[in-house]
Amino acid sequence: MKKLINAPDAVVEEALDGMTAAHGDLIRVHRYPNFITRADAPIRGKTALLSGGGSGHEPMHGGFVGRGMLDAACPGAVFTSPTPDQMLEASKAVNGGAGILHIVKNYTGDVMNFEMAADLARAEGIDVESVVIDDDVAVKDSTWTAGRRGVATTVLAEKICGGAAEARMPLAPVADLCRRVNANGRSMGMALSACTVPHAGKPSFVLQEDEMEIGIGIHGEPGRHRVKLESADRVAEMLLEPILEDLPFKSGDNVLLFVNGMGGTPQIELYIVYRKAYEIAAKHGLKVVRNLVGSYVTSLEMAGCSITLLKLDDEMVKFWDAPVVTPSLRWGA
Amino acid sequence: MKKLINAPDAVVEEALDGMTAAHGDLIRVHRYPNFITRADAPIRGKTALLSGGGSGHEPMHGGFVGRGMLDAACPGAVFTSPTPDQMLEASKAVNGGAGILHIVKNYTGDVMNFEMAADLARAEGIDVESVVIDDDVAVKDSTWTAGRRGVATTVLAEKICGGAAEARMPLAPVADLCRRVNANGRSMGMALSACTVPHAGKPSFVLQEDEMEIGIGIHGEPGRHRVKLESADRVAEMLLEPILEDLPFKSGDNVLLFVNGMGGTPQIELYIVYRKAYEIAAKHGLKVVRNLVGSYVTSLEMAGCSITLLKLDDEMVKFWDAPVVTPSLRWGA
Repeated sequence: MKKLINAPDAVVEEALDGMTAAHGDLIRVHRYPNFITRADAPIRGKTALLSGGGSGHEPMHGGFVGRGMLDAACPGAVFTSPTPDQMLEASKAVNGGAGILHIVKNYTGDVMNFEMAADLARAEGIDVESVVIDDDVAVKDSTWTAGRRGVATTVLAEKICGGAAEARMPLAPVADLCRRVNANGRSMGMALSACTVPHAGKPSFVLQEDEMEIGIGIHGEPGRHRVKLESADRVAEMLLEPILEDLPFKSGDNVLLFVNGMGGTPQIELYIVYRKAYEIAAKHGLKVVRNLVGSYVTSLEMAGCSITLLKLDDEMVKFWDAPVVTPSLRWGA
Repeated sequence: MKKLINAPDAVVEEALDGMTAAHGDLIRVHRYPNFITRADAPIRGKTALLSGGGSGHEPMHGGFVGRGMLDAACPGAVFTSPTPDQMLEASKAVNGGAGILHIVKNYTGDVMNFEMAADLARAEGIDVESVVIDDDVAVKDSTWTAGRRGVATTVLAEKICGGAAEARMPLAPVADLCRRVNANGRSMGMALSACTVPHAGKPSFVLQEDEMEIGIGIHGEPGRHRVKLESADRVAEMLLEPILEDLPFKSGDNVLLFVNGMGGTPQIELYIVYRKAYEIAAKHGLKVVRNLVGSYVTSLEMAGCSITLLKLDDEMVKFWDAPVVTPSLRWGA
């Protein structure tokens, strides 16, 4: 295993130390239980947004804590759900009296732990709503999930709802907006190579030199099919066609097109995929009015990408464009 | 070779298509010869900044074209210098009558071609100054360079000088500022794995499972020594110690600490390296007042990192903090 780490046990803790050293102006890292809050939390009267999940998907979620996006993020061990006590303490730390939205990716452990945390928080008088993101069209059930997995639409939901909450939208409509983003977002991913979880010490699966995995999850869960390596253009088609059919996306729709790197894919390759994805979307009559190209929801050093399409309405565009100041997503302020 | 590409010959062209589709609001991609300009170029009365180099180091340089940074970037083939005609046409396209600064990384081909382009531009009545970046402390001469290689300080120079030019600083003082950034910036890199140039189809070198290369260049040029794999903390020491001695950096200095990913390294590992680098810098008495952590100067999918220290003065801080709106670096506006 070749990694820039000191010890598998220390990966998450030391990365949090690094984030503290680098971004102390934007975020605060709390310990035992571990969670990250924006430096100015809690903000009185503001709906707070909390997300979290296993580590290894950076910059999601810790890199998205800050003004205009998340109030808090709870990092679990690598590819392991955070615990209810992390979520509870984070909820208390960012509670500004206007309630908290938990944004939860659909993995069995995450859903269970976030449910427990929400119950505990409510028992302490905090108003909590939860939205489960399940945007992955690749598989119905998978290794770690009942139903569809939650993947890259999560970032879009965090940004859009973060903009709404920053504008002082109350909890119930922010939660509705989050459900609407989830209902209109679809994703699918693929891998050229596996990643290695530090504790495991070896790749979680093996792909031959001429193989790729289509429909993979962000923990390397198997997807739809393992096939022979194809061109970037064919990969874009294989990912986008099931997405287009699923919503379905219709001619004239305004969309956000998001090409996401899995961690080990050069930016130059993501642009090659984006080029074809944009062309397919345009041919389908879609208007790509917003986009994102980069590695935002990763699987450690896995090589591969995912494509996400989000059908936009005016409110989503407005809050997508709103200023955001986080370690890993920043514009407009 | 596992890559998200269509054909080795088409990589740069198709990535430029993708950038056009994604960032048409910020940049314009010109063809034959290929170069990228900010969408609003030329800007009358503004010193224009132009850089360029081989492709494969994305987001450098194309991702840094926009308000507050570069006016133009010339992408060569992968790991191959752009040609003088690209640089000349780009210079003409962004010439606002106040002269042009060419920011050149110290590789033999780049230096030669930029010199020729500067001569050609001057012959057409354009005022050109050139600054060669040579910040890599690892080796004196290397495969593709006489003298020190130009690496990650380039991004810092482009940002700081970009801020100055945006504030309408004239050409001569912008060039002086660029020389000062270069004179006060030091870098060193390492690799855990090689990368594969699309045309070559196989890795440019081989590292055993228990080996790493210290002092590597951004094209995989050999470095100081090939050694057994070490911890992230030891790697940070091995990179930072030669940097600290070289300037030398002294107790009380204000610095910018930049931990850069080589392309295939997860963000979580970069934070682990940043944590130790910050600790070493602090122990040395340095005040880390600004920082950057991410993959900005890459070698395709190479796993590894580099560390850059820049001794800051007040003017550099002011222009580092100035607004920037480019595809890959953005804040404050």
